[in-house]
Amino acid sequence: MYIGVDLGGTKIKIGMVDEEGQIVSSGLIDTDPSHDDKVIMKDMTVEIERLIKQEGMQLQDIKSIGIGVPGLVDYQKGSIIYCTNLSWYNVEAVNYLKEHFKIPVYIENDATVAAYAESLFGSTKEAKDSVFLTIGTGIGGGIIINKQIIRGAHGAGSEIGHTVIGENFYDCNCGRNGCFETLASATAMIKYALHKMNTNAEVSSLQRAYIEKGQLEAKDIFDHAAMGDALSIETVDRTAKYLAIGIANIYNILDPEIIAIGGGVSKAGDSFFDLVRSKVKKMTLVDSDNIKYGEIVRAELGNDAGIIGAAFLSKQA
Amino acid sequence: MYIGVDLGGTKIKIGMVDEEGQIVSSGLIDTDPSHDDKVIMKDMTVEIERLIKQEGMQLQDIKSIGIGVPGLVDYQKGSIIYCTNLSWYNVEAVNYLKEHFKIPVYIENDATVAAYAESLFGSTKEAKDSVFLTIGTGIGGGIIINKQIIRGAHGAGSEIGHTVIGENFYDCNCGRNGCFETLASATAMIKYALHKMNTNAEVSSLQRAYIEKGQLEAKDIFDHAAMGDALSIETVDRTAKYLAIGIANIYNILDPEIIAIGGGVSKAGDSFFDLVRSKVKKMTLVDSDNIKYGEIVRAELGNDAGIIGAAFLSKQA
Repeated sequence: MYIGVDLGGTKIKIGMVDEEGQIVSSGLIDTDPSHDDKVIMKDMTVEIERLIKQEGMQLQDIKSIGIGVPGLVDYQKGSIIYCTNLSWYNVEAVNYLKEHFKIPVYIENDATVAAYAESLFGSTKEAKDSVFLTIGTGIGGGIIINKQIIRGAHGAGSEIGHTVIGENFYDCNCGRNGCFETLASATAMIKYALHKMNTNAEVSSLQRAYIEKGQLEAKDIFDHAAMGDALSIETVDRTAKYLAIGIANIYNILDPEIIAIGGGVSKAGDSFFDLVRSKVKKMTLVDSDNIKYGEIVRAELGNDAGIIGAAFLSKQA
Repeated sequence: MYIGVDLGGTKIKIGMVDEEGQIVSSGLIDTDPSHDDKVIMKDMTVEIERLIKQEGMQLQDIKSIGIGVPGLVDYQKGSIIYCTNLSWYNVEAVNYLKEHFKIPVYIENDATVAAYAESLFGSTKEAKDSVFLTIGTGIGGGIIINKQIIRGAHGAGSEIGHTVIGENFYDCNCGRNGCFETLASATAMIKYALHKMNTNAEVSSLQRAYIEKGQLEAKDIFDHAAMGDALSIETVDRTAKYLAIGIANIYNILDPEIIAIGGGVSKAGDSFFDLVRSKVKKMTLVDSDNIKYGEIVRAELGNDAGIIGAAFLSKQA
């Protein structure tokens, strides 16, 4: 059995995973960002011990522990370099768990971990080379070449969401302008729709729904686009355009066999995927009649990818 | 001995290379784009045979032949998918030479070949993971991870010059807007300077020099910037800005140990490299005091990189 930990900004999901990638048992604990990292790491060990006990197992039944982190990690040192959600800097997470459990512990960026899970058991399992994008509040990425995680030299790679791909009407949290995630994430959609509501004279059905509900989600925009609302259609089209630019950029650098899309935006209907594919087709360097480009598919493992990929990090050690 | 072929739009350079990466002998033939690909391939074989004879060698002294191509190649099939300069489509170059010489023949994109040469004998030889950019009329790229060429799945990768990184006042030859090479190549510099000459009321020293010479080169722009010409300084600064965006994008995807820059623009003075480095430093996702990012250096092998890298392609087979 393997333990996979999916460290989130508000929750930590922990799972026990078997050799086939099935989650046999799982637990959930809160991560209070006001707590010290040592407190949260301690909570994590308690929950892992509880899971082992619950399954009637002993520590020796667990081969390794893996952690997926929403931030930059130094996988060699086993430390979290930087994690915005939790305001963690240089947390020696691997050493902490290793000293406690005396078994191998591994760490990786969460999108990379999900990319790895998809490549083992999900949407990209048939491919040697794949790229995974998780599109939600931001855009995360994971790169697999020859079934190996591509980590980069300093733990700073796979931050595809922060590649600059255009110009935007607002700046990214990272301080720059034109980051992929400010142009094609769920947050980007919402910001663009609100921006247009402020500047358009005409009141759209989306705007009326927003005023009624008091909040706006990407799903509302997709729904109102499907109902024919012009502002929503324009927002969806712009999102698809920039998602296509980001994908074409990946083609032009890594040329993977397949690109899998996960996260909230991947729950959009097939018509959105078809729109993205048709835009990408027009952006390829060589006509795709002359050369094959990677397929664009929906990721398959959903929220389980984080636990499963983390659990199997020992296979990449 | 190995034979390396650097197939250019107007010339083919052929070299005999020893185990240490030294070019012991070389030849040059014209590539008349009006000639059929078979004629040019035939010229190539004649020149290779001449070189072998000139060195007092026999075919069995040659271990392999490698070809670097300014375009997309299918290295597995050994074919040139597409090569703009020569207007070649689907040319079976490897089979042609294999049938003629009966020795192993390999093919790769020319920037990838130069990246490989730099990683074996040049600026990036100490690094396992490196990216090479050649910046001249366009921008070519080559990616080396773990000392292996990263080819992509369909021969469409490493076209970093065609990643979209902003918005531009003119479109790329590829039909898109905002390609890296339309914002940071020598051509981009010249087009921007001419564009500004047309729109600025003030006549710059660069403009007077251009009128006198009847042509404009990137070197003129660097020279006039050094002399304090405002239009030239602005052009150099814009080029450095977009080169920095392109480099930061590479950090955010591949995070290599080192990025080497070759081609005409790499001949600019150290002050240009320092300008690019200082702009990149402001663009990194995490402050570079908290994380190391890849060094930005000048490539070392110059025009020889194409022959040397091609000659050693057998080591990557």
